[in-house]
Amino acid sequence: MTSPRVALWRNGAATAVSPDEPVVTAFDLGLGRGDGVFESALVAGGATPHLDDHLVRLRRSAGVLGIAHPGDDAVRAVVAAAVGGWPADVEGACRVFLTRNLGDGTPPTLLALLAAVPAETLRQRTEGVSVVTLSLGIPADFRAGAPWLLGGAKTLSYAVNMAAGRHAHSVGADDVVLTSLEGRVLEGPTSTVVWAAGGRLHTPPVETGILAGTTQARLFTRAEADGWPTSVTPGTVADLHAADAVWLLSGIRGATTVTRLDGVERGDAGLSGRVRELLDR
Amino acid sequence: MTSPRVALWRNGAATAVSPDEPVVTAFDLGLGRGDGVFESALVAGGATPHLDDHLVRLRRSAGVLGIAHPGDDAVRAVVAAAVGGWPADVEGACRVFLTRNLGDGTPPTLLALLAAVPAETLRQRTEGVSVVTLSLGIPADFRAGAPWLLGGAKTLSYAVNMAAGRHAHSVGADDVVLTSLEGRVLEGPTSTVVWAAGGRLHTPPVETGILAGTTQARLFTRAEADGWPTSVTPGTVADLHAADAVWLLSGIRGATTVTRLDGVERGDAGLSGRVRELLDR
Repeated sequence: MTSPRVALWRNGAATAVSPDEPVVTAFDLGLGRGDGVFESALVAGGATPHLDDHLVRLRRSAGVLGIAHPGDDAVRAVVAAAVGGWPADVEGACRVFLTRNLGDGTPPTLLALLAAVPAETLRQRTEGVSVVTLSLGIPADFRAGAPWLLGGAKTLSYAVNMAAGRHAHSVGADDVVLTSLEGRVLEGPTSTVVWAAGGRLHTPPVETGILAGTTQARLFTRAEADGWPTSVTPGTVADLHAADAVWLLSGIRGATTVTRLDGVERGDAGLSGRVRELLDR
Repeated sequence: MTSPRVALWRNGAATAVSPDEPVVTAFDLGLGRGDGVFESALVAGGATPHLDDHLVRLRRSAGVLGIAHPGDDAVRAVVAAAVGGWPADVEGACRVFLTRNLGDGTPPTLLALLAAVPAETLRQRTEGVSVVTLSLGIPADFRAGAPWLLGGAKTLSYAVNMAAGRHAHSVGADDVVLTSLEGRVLEGPTSTVVWAAGGRLHTPPVETGILAGTTQARLFTRAEADGWPTSVTPGTVADLHAADAVWLLSGIRGATTVTRLDGVERGDAGLSGRVRELLDR
């Protein structure tokens, strides 16, 4: 087991510290209010092949919350300090946290942490996941007009996302597809939903308040180039049941096949291989 | 300005540390996922007069999230370590954080932090607040049947609560009353809503997923004993406009009179004095 890593941005430089070393103060609003944003980037071959996509989204999330962004170079530096020397044969998940810190004009807190991708995640990547749908109780078109709900921002306030996952485990499932009040498909707690139907790949509109998936975007670009058309589609849970295949996409887990949805076994029409091949290019 | 204080629970004992000292690690889920619970207790006369009420609610919140609770004695010990020697003539806000820590069976993270009540809070306590209503977009009866939404738990995932406050400031208001999809009154981002109408005090039902307010409970108990009847009432924003008085109640700010609601000036029918007298008994 490769040991976890942590790197901090301090006094204009990135510094590696022990993962056991406390890194944020009690008054940091990232801790006390979940008032910060983050990204999770895959580390493969000792590098972060998709870091640029995460930098763009981190900047967007910081903008939604009105957190001062220290600049992409600073983020790159803490990531590099965490990833440097990581073994090429161990996949890792590198998370970047950017918090409002004290909220009094002091610089934001920026740090990166890196750990090996858990064995359970690797298993799900190949074996697929059993998923339950859970509603957020919000109409699909509501968050677009309610900026205080922070739609589209990847914040550190993930208690509900984590609780949804625990709820899934309590009913014997691995993961969750969150839905709107009307039963429209939104996203997973830590993933983007993609389904294949009618010869196309589909994903829900970001106007619902979901995160813009970096892995989904990469897949759709490559699928289009490969002659597999894609659509942004306001789908329902019934659409997922009727689909040829359903995947949960994340930077760390990749395209994970949904093998069971709300207790109903389902296949992937042999399409998962092509999806993974497109992502691995 | 009295300096802030921090105390940690470590190895079975409470230890005071500098407020500038980092206290949680990068892998603590309280930081990375907002996966923890908290309380804010008033410090007055160098003591925490309502700590017992907060201990009860902290335990309830921890139960909702399935976080191991270290016992009330541990919580009392970190609070005492933070509060000890605090000047009797400075009101303080003592917050207790309890996080899931690493989530791997290691003990939860427990700490207390204490700072003087901000001057702006003291000003609002006497001058009242201008409030806007903002919708959470969730039906009032939805969270009771959706435990993954963590209704009733005071979690560290407060990014939306903070964003609601920033939104209020951006439109020239001081604070927020959150509402349901149908326009039912829920709560403030950091307060309980109470209104006076028809000779009674009213507050919304906790079945809506709001927090059970400790200050509201104390007020209602004392009001009943004083011959002022109270009701749990599913009120609307129209009910607030029609009420004799509206207050936002919190342990730190007390009963803060709403002097303006969605741009409409409003009075308190001279009732705020009686409410404060009841709370100060």
